[in-house]
Amino acid sequence: MSKAYEQLTTYLERAQAFQTAMVLFEWDNETLAPKEAGPYTSRMIGAISGEYYRVITDKEFKRFIEACKKDKSLSETEAAIVREAGEELEKLDCIPAEEYREFAQLCSESTRVWAKARKEKDFDAFVPTLKKVLDYQKRFASYRAKEGQKLYNVMLDTYEKGFDMETLDKFFAVLKEQLVPFLKKLMDSGVSIDDSFLTGDYPEEKQEEIGKYLAEYVGFDFNKGVMAVSAHPFTTNLHNHDVRITTAYNNHVDDSIFSVIHESGHGIYEMGIPDELTQTLVGQGTSMGMHESQSRFFENIIGRSQAFWKPVYPKLQEVFPGQLGDVSLEQFVKGINKVTPSLIRTQADEMTYSLHVLIRYEIEKMLVEEDLDVEKLPEVWADKYEEYLGVRPKDVAEGVLQDIHWSQGSFGYFPSYALGSAFGAQLYTYMKKHMDFEGLLETGKAGIRVIREFLRENIHQYGKLKTSRQILKDVTGEDFNPQYYVDYLVEKYSNVYGI
Amino acid sequence: MSKAYEQLTTYLERAQAFQTAMVLFEWDNETLAPKEAGPYTSRMIGAISGEYYRVITDKEFKRFIEACKKDKSLSETEAAIVREAGEELEKLDCIPAEEYREFAQLCSESTRVWAKARKEKDFDAFVPTLKKVLDYQKRFASYRAKEGQKLYNVMLDTYEKGFDMETLDKFFAVLKEQLVPFLKKLMDSGVSIDDSFLTGDYPEEKQEEIGKYLAEYVGFDFNKGVMAVSAHPFTTNLHNHDVRITTAYNNHVDDSIFSVIHESGHGIYEMGIPDELTQTLVGQGTSMGMHESQSRFFENIIGRSQAFWKPVYPKLQEVFPGQLGDVSLEQFVKGINKVTPSLIRTQADEMTYSLHVLIRYEIEKMLVEEDLDVEKLPEVWADKYEEYLGVRPKDVAEGVLQDIHWSQGSFGYFPSYALGSAFGAQLYTYMKKHMDFEGLLETGKAGIRVIREFLRENIHQYGKLKTSRQILKDVTGEDFNPQYYVDYLVEKYSNVYGI
Repeated sequence: MSKAYEQLTTYLERAQAFQTAMVLFEWDNETLAPKEAGPYTSRMIGAISGEYYRVITDKEFKRFIEACKKDKSLSETEAAIVREAGEELEKLDCIPAEEYREFAQLCSESTRVWAKARKEKDFDAFVPTLKKVLDYQKRFASYRAKEGQKLYNVMLDTYEKGFDMETLDKFFAVLKEQLVPFLKKLMDSGVSIDDSFLTGDYPEEKQEEIGKYLAEYVGFDFNKGVMAVSAHPFTTNLHNHDVRITTAYNNHVDDSIFSVIHESGHGIYEMGIPDELTQTLVGQGTSMGMHESQSRFFENIIGRSQAFWKPVYPKLQEVFPGQLGDVSLEQFVKGINKVTPSLIRTQADEMTYSLHVLIRYEIEKMLVEEDLDVEKLPEVWADKYEEYLGVRPKDVAEGVLQDIHWSQGSFGYFPSYALGSAFGAQLYTYMKKHMDFEGLLETGKAGIRVIREFLRENIHQYGKLKTSRQILKDVTGEDFNPQYYVDYLVEKYSNVYGI
Repeated sequence: MSKAYEQLTTYLERAQAFQTAMVLFEWDNETLAPKEAGPYTSRMIGAISGEYYRVITDKEFKRFIEACKKDKSLSETEAAIVREAGEELEKLDCIPAEEYREFAQLCSESTRVWAKARKEKDFDAFVPTLKKVLDYQKRFASYRAKEGQKLYNVMLDTYEKGFDMETLDKFFAVLKEQLVPFLKKLMDSGVSIDDSFLTGDYPEEKQEEIGKYLAEYVGFDFNKGVMAVSAHPFTTNLHNHDVRITTAYNNHVDDSIFSVIHESGHGIYEMGIPDELTQTLVGQGTSMGMHESQSRFFENIIGRSQAFWKPVYPKLQEVFPGQLGDVSLEQFVKGINKVTPSLIRTQADEMTYSLHVLIRYEIEKMLVEEDLDVEKLPEVWADKYEEYLGVRPKDVAEGVLQDIHWSQGSFGYFPSYALGSAFGAQLYTYMKKHMDFEGLLETGKAGIRVIREFLRENIHQYGKLKTSRQILKDVTGEDFNPQYYVDYLVEKYSNVYGI
């Protein structure tokens, strides 16, 4: 190891410890911490994030990065770590310490303001805070923007390298032009699918039992992970030997089943990071989009297929004999694939999901690039829902205030959700040609293992050493192509609806 | 706020954030973290503890302390915080950074070595590590020792200010001279107490139900605290609004009941710290001994009394109708007060508990002051158990390897356990004279509230602003006096055994 790299490493290890501590605080806060701990926890996270900033913007750190960049003896991984470190430095170093602190403080408050406004269905109460958060994010983006770079492109780059507005405009245009009319066709088909059996008396402990069973079944390793309960399901990880998923229980059994399989997909990605990379700057999933591709791959492409349920549905019936004993495999699979245009993104079905994202993408562009007046958001939002999904929110809680993201300053994050689905479909189309995908699912755990190994081999093991775009190219032999996603959806749902 | 104090505060807040993060990592590791996370967690704790060391030993920090010490405008609390900061600095600054790191590393390994050795009943496997840990602690004590100060006194001072060997020799002499013969008398009395009903089929979820009920009943506030499961019960806290207790479940229902009440006592102490003090250097229980006094007060003086169970025993019978329905209140209270000289400290009854501690105190003195050969520990240990308790361990797992403390370098900690019991008895003797203690317990939650408020008012609210010795003097009007403890035990157990 070169001297400069070694010195850089000591800084990175300190930064990593702070990151890990913040992850743990956040996990704890969402899952277990007592009610009154909140404000104190925010202060702690604020303090630790200040320490992180302090390490990254240390003059010595900058000096070591410069030295490493000139060092030709670095391995490929080391060079990638230096590159990531440089990007992290660039991201933070251009923000004055004072503004960084103010923004961190603002964010922890603004999430509370948002939650209250949502609860009280009072958008006006959130407007001043949202304006401030947006202003900060625009300012930070302007600090980081390269000559002539659009601000929203700076934001997008944080979550998904190589996917700027030009690419995304094309992507979302494909969805809009083909999926919106297809959805209308489905809804006008007169076909009605029964999924009433998914709602009812599903005891929590039984849902937990089947949730853990399914997580393990798809490959979530409970020696390296845990599952807990939180208000909204999420995945987090301290490192590749400590990956954590959550779920929530209600009387819709499919909510917990598919959230568990979804989060397991995220978890399996992080468990697939090699020991050599974990807890380094390249030791995580490469992007939000690729992460979402894995979670949605497990949830939808694997988890909502008949082949998947064929060996495992009897187990589900065994746990819920009264509720599902009389429901056939075919009825069950149709039920879990019912399409219902709805108002809430996180409850959307596979077919309509990316239309929710399309709406957010269009609005974010307007907010950042066209200075849309924040006050007008509820109306713009409602109009777009009516146009694309045929439904109109009756209040802001089921409209513009449904997502936490903007309150946290996450502008540019949403597109990853739709990109992930599209990445997944492109990978699936390739995989189907080279393996008996459905046949593997029908053989149960052993078959899923083959699929999982393919994903590990081609995606997970690289961490951040490859971008999502590179991965797609290396695996499928071609650049990102959204048509696969549309074709996949149209084929699948034409079948489900028999049209 | 004075300028220097303000500057000191920014350092202290950083140190506090690191401390809190370490507490959370440790809590998480004991309660929830996946099996394979252990070594990574150790590394994180090591890194964060390095950051803590870095802040405390910063030259600026030292400068601000010096400035504050000269500042006459500080409030009493501020001055106390400066004093504590100075002590923390003294404690760490004398240890070379390199040795500090090595020792932290050693400790995290040594706990694993100890656990393995205990499991395999192989003391020799632990000897080299224990020697190293002991050497480090002696060396660190020598760095900190004042002119002529004995090393073991330096260690004792860390846990209990004002209780050096001179005081403790007298304390333990009283126990040895009076309790050892009294125990013999009890055992020779021929009285036999039935407690067989405490062991049996006690389902875990029912134990959890009654555990939470009792924690709340004695005053543990679940808005500011949580209860979880771990291998060994413990209490920890992030601040006064986030206090955490654990318990463990087996087929002895009294194990979980009394561990919950015990840990609730610790928790109530920390919940009683005022908001102004929490997350400062004086915002915790004043000492290990005073902490143990509160936990053992709740567990034994309150929790093993007939007056306590009078209103609440029907609830216990309701939860366990098959197991306790036919056991009368009197039988139950006798059962939970049965004396059985045994080998394991953590399972010891109230009567014999401090004799276990006496043995550890005598051995620690020999190790630190008389250079007792570590290899001889198992034999010395067994001989003392035979002499004081009349039982002899058949292996090291139930002998010298039973406690984790020495593997963590905690020499001088044990006496606090016995001191705590004695503090509690002295407080109880005073309280009984000034309030109808048993009458209050008989009125249930409202009565316990009065007792708890007394403790909060006189002990908890001061945090570290008073030492345990000062507290005893201020509350009871006299210095620490171990005779109250012996008298309490002799009176109580003479009654229980009718001798």
